[in-house]
Amino acid sequence: MSERREMRDLVTLDHAREVVGDLGVGGGTERVPLDEASGRVLADRVDANLDVPGFDRASVDGYAVRAADTTGAGEANPLTLSVDGLVEAGERPAVTVEDGAAVEIATGAVVPPGANAVVMVEDTTEHAETVEVRRAVPPGGNVMAAGADIAAGDRALGAGVRLTPRTVGLLAAMGHDTVAVRRRPRVAVVATGEELVQPGDELDHGRGQIYDVNTETIATGVREAGGEPVRYTRVPDDREAMADALREAAEECDMVLTAGSTSASGADMLYSVVEDVGDLLVHGVALKPGKPTIVGRVDGTPYVGLPGYPVSALSVFRLLVAPRLRRAAGYGTERSVTTTGRLAVDERFDEGRRRALPVGLVADGDGETVVYPVDKGSGATTTLAAADGVVDMPADTRRLRAGEDVTVELFSPDARAPPVLVVGESDPAAVELLDAVDGARCLTDGDRAGRRWLRDGVADVAVLTGETGTAPENGAVLGTWTREWGVVTADDSLGETPLKTLAEGGRAVATVNRDLGLRAAVEDATQEAGLAPDALAGVETAGVESPARRVADGRADAGITLRATAEALGLHFVGVGTQRVSLVGNEQRLSKPAVKRLRRETASVTAVLDGLPGYAE
Amino acid sequence: MSERREMRDLVTLDHAREVVGDLGVGGGTERVPLDEASGRVLADRVDANLDVPGFDRASVDGYAVRAADTTGAGEANPLTLSVDGLVEAGERPAVTVEDGAAVEIATGAVVPPGANAVVMVEDTTEHAETVEVRRAVPPGGNVMAAGADIAAGDRALGAGVRLTPRTVGLLAAMGHDTVAVRRRPRVAVVATGEELVQPGDELDHGRGQIYDVNTETIATGVREAGGEPVRYTRVPDDREAMADALREAAEECDMVLTAGSTSASGADMLYSVVEDVGDLLVHGVALKPGKPTIVGRVDGTPYVGLPGYPVSALSVFRLLVAPRLRRAAGYGTERSVTTTGRLAVDERFDEGRRRALPVGLVADGDGETVVYPVDKGSGATTTLAAADGVVDMPADTRRLRAGEDVTVELFSPDARAPPVLVVGESDPAAVELLDAVDGARCLTDGDRAGRRWLRDGVADVAVLTGETGTAPENGAVLGTWTREWGVVTADDSLGETPLKTLAEGGRAVATVNRDLGLRAAVEDATQEAGLAPDALAGVETAGVESPARRVADGRADAGITLRATAEALGLHFVGVGTQRVSLVGNEQRLSKPAVKRLRRETASVTAVLDGLPGYAE
Repeated sequence: MSERREMRDLVTLDHAREVVGDLGVGGGTERVPLDEASGRVLADRVDANLDVPGFDRASVDGYAVRAADTTGAGEANPLTLSVDGLVEAGERPAVTVEDGAAVEIATGAVVPPGANAVVMVEDTTEHAETVEVRRAVPPGGNVMAAGADIAAGDRALGAGVRLTPRTVGLLAAMGHDTVAVRRRPRVAVVATGEELVQPGDELDHGRGQIYDVNTETIATGVREAGGEPVRYTRVPDDREAMADALREAAEECDMVLTAGSTSASGADMLYSVVEDVGDLLVHGVALKPGKPTIVGRVDGTPYVGLPGYPVSALSVFRLLVAPRLRRAAGYGTERSVTTTGRLAVDERFDEGRRRALPVGLVADGDGETVVYPVDKGSGATTTLAAADGVVDMPADTRRLRAGEDVTVELFSPDARAPPVLVVGESDPAAVELLDAVDGARCLTDGDRAGRRWLRDGVADVAVLTGETGTAPENGAVLGTWTREWGVVTADDSLGETPLKTLAEGGRAVATVNRDLGLRAAVEDATQEAGLAPDALAGVETAGVESPARRVADGRADAGITLRATAEALGLHFVGVGTQRVSLVGNEQRLSKPAVKRLRRETASVTAVLDGLPGYAE
Repeated sequence: MSERREMRDLVTLDHAREVVGDLGVGGGTERVPLDEASGRVLADRVDANLDVPGFDRASVDGYAVRAADTTGAGEANPLTLSVDGLVEAGERPAVTVEDGAAVEIATGAVVPPGANAVVMVEDTTEHAETVEVRRAVPPGGNVMAAGADIAAGDRALGAGVRLTPRTVGLLAAMGHDTVAVRRRPRVAVVATGEELVQPGDELDHGRGQIYDVNTETIATGVREAGGEPVRYTRVPDDREAMADALREAAEECDMVLTAGSTSASGADMLYSVVEDVGDLLVHGVALKPGKPTIVGRVDGTPYVGLPGYPVSALSVFRLLVAPRLRRAAGYGTERSVTTTGRLAVDERFDEGRRRALPVGLVADGDGETVVYPVDKGSGATTTLAAADGVVDMPADTRRLRAGEDVTVELFSPDARAPPVLVVGESDPAAVELLDAVDGARCLTDGDRAGRRWLRDGVADVAVLTGETGTAPENGAVLGTWTREWGVVTADDSLGETPLKTLAEGGRAVATVNRDLGLRAAVEDATQEAGLAPDALAGVETAGVESPARRVADGRADAGITLRATAEALGLHFVGVGTQRVSLVGNEQRLSKPAVKRLRRETASVTAVLDGLPGYAE
C-alpha cells in the first residue's frame, strides 16, 4: 500500500456516457426458433413470400353463392337456392357453384369456384335440399380475399423491430419457424475483492468476508438490458491475476465489466492494470454514488469498471452501461417510467457531484404519493431493496425541500408504492403479523427510526417500544403486546443476576445499539440494579437477534436478546425483564386497506404470541 | 353440419372476468438458483439469519483509530499517531489498536480490536512509522457497524415479493444461492382446426390450409403473464379427439386454453364437448373481437376456449386470461400503461357489445400523438402487428369522433409511435428505401389507401402511383421513379401482345384488385388496346407479387406483375407499360427526422433503382 493517489479529474456523467457510447459493442446475428423469438430484435427485413390467406376464405359460417343471385333478397322476400354440397375448413372444394345454387361453407374454408360471396347462416333457413336466403350479399361479402391479410411482396417487418407476441404471430402466419435476430452482446461480469465469498458458501466473519452481491445483480441487469452475462470467478487483488482475467474476458466477450477495486488507493490497482493492458479513457465520474468508475478498452474490447459497493455498482450500471447494452442489443432507448410525488423530508447534498438519490414510495391517506430517501449508504444492499427508483439531483442542486414535488425515475415499470410501509423495532411478533399483507415493506431500523418516520409522515405503521402513551402525536395504537428480554450464554454460568455478573467484566458481551428500543430497557435495568451506566459495554449490534447469533457462533460469551430468539436458537437464557411493543399507525392512514388488515390481525394477536416464548398480551 | 345453434346468452366482459377469477389456478412452490430468480415471486418470507456485514467494516481507505485519540485534530493542529500495521480486505486483523496508535486499513476490511473509527486517508499524511491526522473523527465514524445493513432477525423480504436485480442482491448478501419461488402455472395451449399447418411445414392453398398463428402468440403471451406454456399438437375437428385432448391437457396442466372451434355452428362443437367432459360456465361474451369465447372446467381444471381468429384470440387472452395468470403467478395487477392521443378518423360501432378497438400511434408534425384504427378484421394477423394498443369502447359508445382525445391501453410499456408511418402501394423500390429508417412501419394497402391515409392526416408518407401532379393537396413529393409492368407466364406462349392473347380466354389469369394503383395502369392499357373493360377478368389479388406467385406455383397460367418481381422469381415476362411511383410526404410532417431521412434517400434513389430490372428515374 505504498503508493496512494487521488483519482484523476472527474468527468461528468454525460461525458462518460459519450465515451461509453463511442465504444463498439458486439454485433452479429443468429437464428432462433420462433418460440424463443419474443423480445429479440429482427436482424433483417422480412418480406412476405406468400399471400395470407393463400385463397379466398369464408369469414363466417354460411353459404357460398354468386352475389348476383341474392340481389333483392330480404326478410319479406326470401330467395331460394339449391344446396349443392358442403366445404369444411381444410378441405379442397369438390364442387363449382352454378347460377341459382349455393354450397354450405364453414368459417375458414375455401370459397369454391363460381362463388364470390358468402351469406351468413343467420340470414338463411335450411330446407332438405335448398336454402332460403333472407339478405342480399355484395360481391366479396363475408370473404377474406387471397392476400388481403398479407400480400406476397409486402414489407412485413423491418430490420431492428423488437419482436412481441403479435409480431411473432405475423411471422408464424407467413410460415417462419425460425427467424434471424441480433445476437445478444456477451458481457463478462468479473467481481474483484479478497473478501468476497460466493453465496451458498461459508463465511468467515473474523476475516471480514462478505457475500458477493455484484456478480448476481449485474448479471441480472445485463440480461434485462439485452445482453448475455458471462460470469467469471472472483479475481484476487493481484496485478498479474487481474491483467490475466481482463485479457481472458476481453478475448471471450463483447464487453467486460468488473465490480470493485476501482478506487484510487494502492490496493485497488485496476485503473493502472487497465493502463497496462489497454486504454484508460475515464477514471472517476462526478456522480454519487459512482465516483470511482473506470471506462476503457482491454485489447480493443470495451471495458467498464464499476465501483464495488452494490448500490454504486448497480446505479452506474443503470446510468452508464445499460443504455449502451440496450443500443447494442437493438432494444432502442428505454421508455423511462417516472412518477411524481411529494418529498417527505429535506435532502441536502453539496459535494458538487450529480446525485442519483435512491428513494422509496408510499401512498398517503389521500392516495397521493410520498417520496422518501432510503440511503443507508452505498455499501448497504438494503438500500437497493427498499428503493423504488431515484431522484436525479444535478450537481448544482444542493437541497430538495420537504413538501416539494419531485420526479422519480422508477427502477422498473412495475415499481410502485407497497401496500404498507412499516418502520421500527426488530420484533419477532411484528415480523409474523406483517405476513398478513402480501408485499408489505418493512424497514427494521429500530424504535427511534420508527418514531421519526411516523412523525415525518413517511411510515404508515411504526413498531415502537415502551408504554403506548409514549407514541407520537399522530400515532394510533393498532395493537400491543409484551416481550421478555434477558441474557443468552452458551452455558449457564451467569447465575440469577446476569447483569451484575456481566458487569464484573471478563466476558465478551454483545448488546444492541441505541437505535433499538431494547437498548432503553437494558439501560433502565442496569440503572435499577445499581450498576454504572456503561457496565455492559461491549459490541453494539443493530438487531435483537444479532447478539444471540454472536454467542451461537462463539464471537461473544454473552448477549442481550429476547427469550423467543434465544429459545429458537437453542441458547441458554436468563430473563431480566419485559418490554411493551406496539404497532402504531399513522392516524392519517388508518383507512388504507393494508393498515386496516394489520389492525384486524393485531386484534387477534394471541395466536402469534402463543407461538413465541416470553410473549404476552 | 346438421345442428346449427345460436350462442347462448352473451355475458359481459366483467362477468366473464369474475367467472375466470373464481377458477382455482395452479399453486405450489419450487426452488430455483439465484441466477434464475429475477422476475419470479418469493414463496416464503425470508428473514435474515446473519448480520450484514458480519463485522465492523471500514467504509473508506484510511487508518483505524480510537476516536478519542483524534479529538482536537485539524488542518492547523495535526496529531501524530504511531502506525502499528495494516489490515487489508478479507484479512483477519493481526493487531489491536492501542491508545495513541493507528492501523492502516483498506475499504471493506475488519476494523481491528481497540479501534472504533476510521480516519480517511485524505485527512492524513503518512510518515515512516507514524501518521499525521488532520481531522477528528467521532466514534463509529467511517465504520459500517456489524448488522447495519441487515441485522439477524430482520424481516428481509416478504412472501409474494416479485424479485428484481436489487432484491436478488439482498438475497445474495445474506448468502442464499437458491430461493423458494412460486411455481409458474402450467398452461396447455391447444389449437384446433383441420386447416392449420405448423410454421415451417408446406402449405396446400387448394385445401385452404393456413399456418397456425395462435399456438405461438398465445404461448408467448402465457410466458409473459407468468405461466409456463405447454404446446399440444393441433387437434382435429372431431368430438372424440377433442374430448381426449382436453382431458389429457387438464390432467397435465393447471389451466387449459384452446384457440378455435368456439363458435356456435355444428362443426365447432367444443362447447358441447366441454359440456360432456366438464362444466360449461360461459359461452359467448359481449365483446368485439371475442364474442365466441368459452369458459368452463375440464375434470376440475380451469378451461378457456379462445376464438380462432388470431386478433380475437390474443385480445380475449389479454383481457380475460392474462390477468388471472398474473394473479396465479403472484405478479399482481399489471400497471396498465396508457397514452392519450387525437383520434384521426370517425369510428362507429353499434352492435351493443363492448369493443377493444385495435389502434396504431403516429406523431404529427408538432410531436402530438395521433391515434388511428387498424382493423383489417379479426382474421388478419397484420392487425396484430400494426397495432400499438387498443381503445376501449363501452357497449353504449356508438361513435368516436375524429379529433376527439382517446386513451390507448398500450400492448406493452415499450409500445410507441414508429419513427415513420408509410401507407400505400406495394412496390419493391419503396420497400428497399424504407430500410433507411429502423423501425419504419409500412402498411401496404395500395395507392387508394395511401391517398386516403395521407388526406386524413394519418400517414407520414404515402406510396402513390400515377403522375406526381395527382398527389393529394397536403402531399409533397419526396422522390419519384418509374416501374415496368406486364404479364408473367410459366412459358413464353403469350406473344408480343399479351393482353390481347389473354383476352381471348382459356387461361386462368391472376390480376391485382382495385385497391392497387397497378390496376389502373392495367385498365388503361386494356382500353388503349381496344379491349373490353372486363377482358382480363380473373382472380384479383392484393399485391403486385401475388399474381406472379400464383403463376410460379401453378395456380394461374398468367399474371399481372412487375418486371423486377418476375425476374426475381425467374418467370417469363412480357412488358406492357411503365408506371410512375412516388413517395409523397404529408407536408405537415416534413420536419420529422425519419421523413427527412427518406427524402435524402430518395434524392439518391439511383442505387436502389439500378438493382431493380425495369426501374428508372
